[in-house]
Amino acid sequence: MRNNWNIFHKLSKTLRDNPSLSSLLVVSSVSGGSLLAYSEANPSQPKISDSSEDGKRKKRVVVLGTGWAGTSFLKSLKDPSYDVQVISPRNYFAFTPLLPSVTCGTVEPRSIVEPIRNIVRKKNVDIHYWEAECYKIDAENKKVYCRPAQGGKMDGNAEFVVDYDYLVVAMGARANTFNTPGVEENCHFLKEIEDAQKIRRTVIDCFERASLPNLTDEERKRVLAFVIVGGGPTGVEFAAELHDFVSEDLVKLYPKVKGLVKISLLEAGDHILNMFDKRITVFAEGKFKRDGIDLKMGSMVVKVSDSAISTKDIKTGEVSSLPYGMVVWSTGIGTRPVIMDFMKQVGQVNRRVLATDEWLRVERTDSIYALGDCATINQRKVMEDISEIFRKADKDNSGTLTVKEFQEALDDICERYPQMELYLKNKKMSSLVDILKESKGDIAKESIELNIEDFKLALSQVDSQMKNLPATAQVAAQQGAYLASCFNRMEECEKNPEGPVRFRGSGRHRFKPFRYKHLGQFAPLGGEQTAAQLPGDWVSIGQSSQWLWYSVYASKLVSWRTRALVISDWTRRFIFGRDSSQI
Amino acid sequence: MRNNWNIFHKLSKTLRDNPSLSSLLVVSSVSGGSLLAYSEANPSQPKISDSSEDGKRKKRVVVLGTGWAGTSFLKSLKDPSYDVQVISPRNYFAFTPLLPSVTCGTVEPRSIVEPIRNIVRKKNVDIHYWEAECYKIDAENKKVYCRPAQGGKMDGNAEFVVDYDYLVVAMGARANTFNTPGVEENCHFLKEIEDAQKIRRTVIDCFERASLPNLTDEERKRVLAFVIVGGGPTGVEFAAELHDFVSEDLVKLYPKVKGLVKISLLEAGDHILNMFDKRITVFAEGKFKRDGIDLKMGSMVVKVSDSAISTKDIKTGEVSSLPYGMVVWSTGIGTRPVIMDFMKQVGQVNRRVLATDEWLRVERTDSIYALGDCATINQRKVMEDISEIFRKADKDNSGTLTVKEFQEALDDICERYPQMELYLKNKKMSSLVDILKESKGDIAKESIELNIEDFKLALSQVDSQMKNLPATAQVAAQQGAYLASCFNRMEECEKNPEGPVRFRGSGRHRFKPFRYKHLGQFAPLGGEQTAAQLPGDWVSIGQSSQWLWYSVYASKLVSWRTRALVISDWTRRFIFGRDSSQI
Repeated sequence: MRNNWNIFHKLSKTLRDNPSLSSLLVVSSVSGGSLLAYSEANPSQPKISDSSEDGKRKKRVVVLGTGWAGTSFLKSLKDPSYDVQVISPRNYFAFTPLLPSVTCGTVEPRSIVEPIRNIVRKKNVDIHYWEAECYKIDAENKKVYCRPAQGGKMDGNAEFVVDYDYLVVAMGARANTFNTPGVEENCHFLKEIEDAQKIRRTVIDCFERASLPNLTDEERKRVLAFVIVGGGPTGVEFAAELHDFVSEDLVKLYPKVKGLVKISLLEAGDHILNMFDKRITVFAEGKFKRDGIDLKMGSMVVKVSDSAISTKDIKTGEVSSLPYGMVVWSTGIGTRPVIMDFMKQVGQVNRRVLATDEWLRVERTDSIYALGDCATINQRKVMEDISEIFRKADKDNSGTLTVKEFQEALDDICERYPQMELYLKNKKMSSLVDILKESKGDIAKESIELNIEDFKLALSQVDSQMKNLPATAQVAAQQGAYLASCFNRMEECEKNPEGPVRFRGSGRHRFKPFRYKHLGQFAPLGGEQTAAQLPGDWVSIGQSSQWLWYSVYASKLVSWRTRALVISDWTRRFIFGRDSSQI
Repeated sequence: MRNNWNIFHKLSKTLRDNPSLSSLLVVSSVSGGSLLAYSEANPSQPKISDSSEDGKRKKRVVVLGTGWAGTSFLKSLKDPSYDVQVISPRNYFAFTPLLPSVTCGTVEPRSIVEPIRNIVRKKNVDIHYWEAECYKIDAENKKVYCRPAQGGKMDGNAEFVVDYDYLVVAMGARANTFNTPGVEENCHFLKEIEDAQKIRRTVIDCFERASLPNLTDEERKRVLAFVIVGGGPTGVEFAAELHDFVSEDLVKLYPKVKGLVKISLLEAGDHILNMFDKRITVFAEGKFKRDGIDLKMGSMVVKVSDSAISTKDIKTGEVSSLPYGMVVWSTGIGTRPVIMDFMKQVGQVNRRVLATDEWLRVERTDSIYALGDCATINQRKVMEDISEIFRKADKDNSGTLTVKEFQEALDDICERYPQMELYLKNKKMSSLVDILKESKGDIAKESIELNIEDFKLALSQVDSQMKNLPATAQVAAQQGAYLASCFNRMEECEKNPEGPVRFRGSGRHRFKPFRYKHLGQFAPLGGEQTAAQLPGDWVSIGQSSQWLWYSVYASKLVSWRTRALVISDWTRRFIFGRDSSQI
């Protein structure tokens, strides 16, 4: 016995000291390994001695937030010449795309989180983490004001102030209630791990309450009316998860009330999943109808009381009331108060969201970056800079542009104004020459010359191609990695700028602007059916997409630990079903 | 892909419909299977049509509580002629011996719980469960008053009343604070799943707070001072778990504060684990000292403020103050208010604990049973009934007892008064004859005759053998199974009583009285060391006992699901360590 034990103990010790070995173990335990289609290797790196002792003070970088953007930034930061302080009320990173699965116990909350200290401790960069909430950014004095995250016992004044040289704001967003009365008090949200846990407890609670002996059937129906507000990916996925949970697991344990359950999905627009391909929307709506999920389109919530939700039909204006047992509110995101306050400080007064330039730097600041859900990139319009573009392109200062001059400036224009590239692509035009031809009629290529007015006319439609990036994990993660790569090459690119020409100023931009690369999006619809919209307009719906979903999510998880846990959660669910204990 | 999927889907469906098959899977996945040394088979039984339609009203049994006693009763109840209603605020059974492991994440909370509806749904007995709290027992009118367990939205008055023919009280106990000021407000307890979760969060919280930038070393030390009050098995196991968590996992993530952690264990008595064998106590105290756990014996807590705990030395009377970051209070159990109120009703006024007879029936009631931690068996003293015993044994009414008369009555006496058997065993006497010889001196066996005074003298020391049963899961589970076996044979034993002769009344008792069979007890001491005290005074300490502990606990878990989960939790801990996310 003792001998066996020692072998096992040594093995487990080896595995813990060498995470890459343990990953082998996990892969080999997943039959075929196909579930782990790809994955980023992240071997532990040797410690490189930092340069703080040689007199040069390290630049202090303060990162606010440990979500997708902040964590991705920290993971990609490699330059040891920074002294990084991370401030967030959550000491872990959460793999939020699996949050809807947590609401019904398909996946356990702890399986999708990884302590931020674990993520950063093997890096050769000095990174300190404080579990605290930043409640004020002082941009003028380069300070952030913080307080401990958990209310509780603490000697004296526990608040503290941190100085920074660079500030990376990645605090995410809060749920947007559109100031609808009663939402804050009566609805569940689905943004944090705690929200998902609360929803899970509430679902079980509703079933237990509906089973109590002295209720009328009317009351039972009311308690078992689950309402989801918002037909976006989160709301739809939660509705699907809940339907599966009820029909696969709860009906067995609560046979007497199973006929009384009703799931309703309210959407103000005409369709659910309206950011997806039309085929997906149609399939999803059809599946939900077959599943008995009540879809109410064009229905706007005007008030939520403690037991009923009032909706207004957008077309008819008719107001109706829907009794409910639980409401989940998932209608999009709003700006956090601390960001609103910060926006006032930096003069972004009439905006709803914090604006950055294409390099993720907050507009009107010089050392503050913002990424993820808490900010949007305010793309520069071509038409705003049209005179400067014309002047730069017109190298011989002739007052007219030739095709040759144009073509030489084209790369820089496309890099600085991505809408230009999109415009060319969408109009299926291979070069700017085609644009010129279009505006000047069918004349010989060489003889085209444009004056400034012609130029404006030719590009008048370009800016219609601009659109804001969606508030997704994918965008936030890419922004974090992008910003870290800038930080990694800060000095190098100071000397040799790699960005496009400055049309308004002189010289070049230090870095290339951030470009989002869309890798596709999933919409799990329940019953092992998933819709996937992949790049190149490729749409896939059904069980094969569900397996693609399993593989991609398993591979994208942040650590081998979470990967192993999530896969074992899925396996457990297949074998034993979901747990319905009220904890 | 689709084909693979279908096979897997069918397999998983088969497994879910046949729990016994899935158990095979689990066993085969545990290498060697030695971890699952033994296990109770519990195949699903065919539904037997009940007799409620043939006009005979089913007896209504109300069970209060879903802990060890209540669940064990439900699992063992087989007679379909009862209509059972289970009322408990917890809709699950929790495997409480693993609670200390939950406090530090060695095992996840959900791995040790099983929904009570899952446990009862495959039985052929009508069992209904209500998630509610009984706040009043009305013994006179045979009713219990209940209210829904979770505060929340509910139409009208949600309270309800349930009638019973038999009441089984198995509500457990609450933590005993001995009315020490400040305990309720400032201390953690360790009785429920929620308590363990809260402790886990608080431990991480203390480490995060101690890491914040603006604290003095004094403050950091205070926040990292963990105090456990009570040196019983729970307190000791928690201290050991916490020490392992800190030294195996947290020191890596919080390297700057690891030197400041202090774990203290306060015990009012002279030794920790004083219900165990002396060898175990000595080993445990030695191990804790080597581990740096501060043991404070003879130390009584007199007050707990929000940041310090005041203790009094029992010998010197000296009062000292100990600053703390977290206190866990684990000093034993007290009676719940609803039981106190019930005791008043049934005339048990001056007792601290609800008393039952040896058949688990509450004294002074006829259809209420109480088992587990909420009650104690009030054993009848031999000396109370000595005249009746003498009269029954003296069959010829001669006024004296012969050896023959004695021997004929001995079995009944031992069955009714278990202390008699213990007395014989402990004095190494093989029969009552030896007792008689002892009191009458060395005379011939046949000529011994005793009058009532001799008899009293001979048995005067017998009652010193009585002792109360410990408040353990083992006792509660055995009581539940015992009571169910009585309920299963209620009618049969009404006709053919199987119990001992009634010494006070006439005829025989219907059932044999409850007898506790001690199967041994474990005390995990951390670092893969466990002390085990097994029947027959067999003591084992070390890693081999740790493996015994693993096997016994894995086998004793309530379902194959929890078994698989707990084993996978242990495996995860060996490979990846414990998680320290603040959720």
